[in-house]
Amino acid sequence: MNPKHTDRERIEHRACFGGWQDVYRHQSEALDCAMHVAVYLPPQAEQRRCPVLYWLSGLTCTEQNFITKAGAQRYAADHGVIVVAPDTSPRGDAVPDADGYDLGKGAGFYLDATQAPWSSHYRMQDYVARELPDWIDAHIPNSGARAISGHSMGGHGALVTALRNPGRYRSVSAFSPIVSPTQVPWGQKAFAAYLGEDREAWKAWDACELIADAQERLPLLVDQGEDDEFLDTQLQPERLAAACDAAGHPLDLRMRKGYDHSYYFIASFIGEHFIFHMRQLSRTR
Amino acid sequence: MNPKHTDRERIEHRACFGGWQDVYRHQSEALDCAMHVAVYLPPQAEQRRCPVLYWLSGLTCTEQNFITKAGAQRYAADHGVIVVAPDTSPRGDAVPDADGYDLGKGAGFYLDATQAPWSSHYRMQDYVARELPDWIDAHIPNSGARAISGHSMGGHGALVTALRNPGRYRSVSAFSPIVSPTQVPWGQKAFAAYLGEDREAWKAWDACELIADAQERLPLLVDQGEDDEFLDTQLQPERLAAACDAAGHPLDLRMRKGYDHSYYFIASFIGEHFIFHMRQLSRTR
Repeated sequence: MNPKHTDRERIEHRACFGGWQDVYRHQSEALDCAMHVAVYLPPQAEQRRCPVLYWLSGLTCTEQNFITKAGAQRYAADHGVIVVAPDTSPRGDAVPDADGYDLGKGAGFYLDATQAPWSSHYRMQDYVARELPDWIDAHIPNSGARAISGHSMGGHGALVTALRNPGRYRSVSAFSPIVSPTQVPWGQKAFAAYLGEDREAWKAWDACELIADAQERLPLLVDQGEDDEFLDTQLQPERLAAACDAAGHPLDLRMRKGYDHSYYFIASFIGEHFIFHMRQLSRTR
Repeated sequence: MNPKHTDRERIEHRACFGGWQDVYRHQSEALDCAMHVAVYLPPQAEQRRCPVLYWLSGLTCTEQNFITKAGAQRYAADHGVIVVAPDTSPRGDAVPDADGYDLGKGAGFYLDATQAPWSSHYRMQDYVARELPDWIDAHIPNSGARAISGHSMGGHGALVTALRNPGRYRSVSAFSPIVSPTQVPWGQKAFAAYLGEDREAWKAWDACELIADAQERLPLLVDQGEDDEFLDTQLQPERLAAACDAAGHPLDLRMRKGYDHSYYFIASFIGEHFIFHMRQLSRTR
């Protein structure tokens, strides 16, 4: 056995659209706990090195939601893309938690917490932007080309992770993202707990703040349901449109009549996101 | 409001692939309880009357599993097919249950029970073959053309329902069906409880027994994973192949290398089942 493979355990392995939907358990240094991560290997991965799309899920989710509900494997198999979907927070008995679905486990917000008791484990940004891609590159042969996407809290995570790490991803997209967590209740509750009361420190984790200083013009696609139950209170995509407009940053914002916040919405349009990302991922550099 | 609509309550209504994934609650006379049934309306249903594919799920499932995990709506929208997916057993506090996942609630086996305490509610055949289609035809405008499919226990249900009701369906398919419940542990346990110890009475609910006397040559497609964990113990598709061969009944049995019993398997091939059923459903009669 390759020594590189001894720090992982494959806990699911299921044939799917000619490839394999796997789930691994591995020890994360950044999070100081064991993490599950889902990896879809398209059939093309047996013949050549494929690009990788990272997917970040929303509040309450684990690595399972996207792989069971989005129907993404069909498109990944069509285009030859590896899809990596991690869990949404550190896990385990030693990890602090809170009452409610929007703080603590299942609600990591893809940032690095600075406040006790969260700072010991809640370092999801370090995990998704550094440790996880390193782990993937060490264990899953791939082309090195990366894109990132996500839903709701994970849409925020995708936007912030791409904006904070120029050069790391070729394109970024999101479904129903929390575009400006500093301005809405979900983000304000989480940021106050994880980052403390200094609201200046919050700006480093807000896509609408980051876009003003973006060092690259990354292709950016956002899908948003017009009947999303969180549209006005938590999502407010017009803030991202205004920030991109002010910064001269590209944005393809697609408002979808009748669609809500659910995976039925994601499933309906995830195929278009694969096409969007493949335009960048298939380019030779 | 149309008076016909007063005996139903729409409890979910979600935009999906240009159509609507709905779930209704309605009162079933056959089962003497309230039932949930999922109905996908493709976008074409706004313009014309579409055919209906009935889907029967397997052990432990509700009306939710197929609609959240199979990715079928994309194909239903492509082809213009209404998809109806009922729950797998009667439900509610008044309904008898048993320990274990393979008898009682979530394990109705799509038959009409004759033994106490089951006979009062467990009349799933009467429900899926008569009451549910009548309810659909009364409430959901459609072309009148029907097909039926299902998974595992629901694969058994689809085969038996089609064979017991000649002329009712234009085609039948199944994923990983229990082809001969009288010969395997799942079926023997359920049939002993629901139908009693007279094994002659069991034969009326066994596809391999029914096929010998089939009054029509219904197009029949079966998909089966070769790495299905229940293949040898509970499924034994070779029994169906032998029964069809002996009866001169058509059967397209597709053994799929590497695939297991999960919804990843169903998702991978459900598109082919839509193509199969559409060959019959799109014909004018």
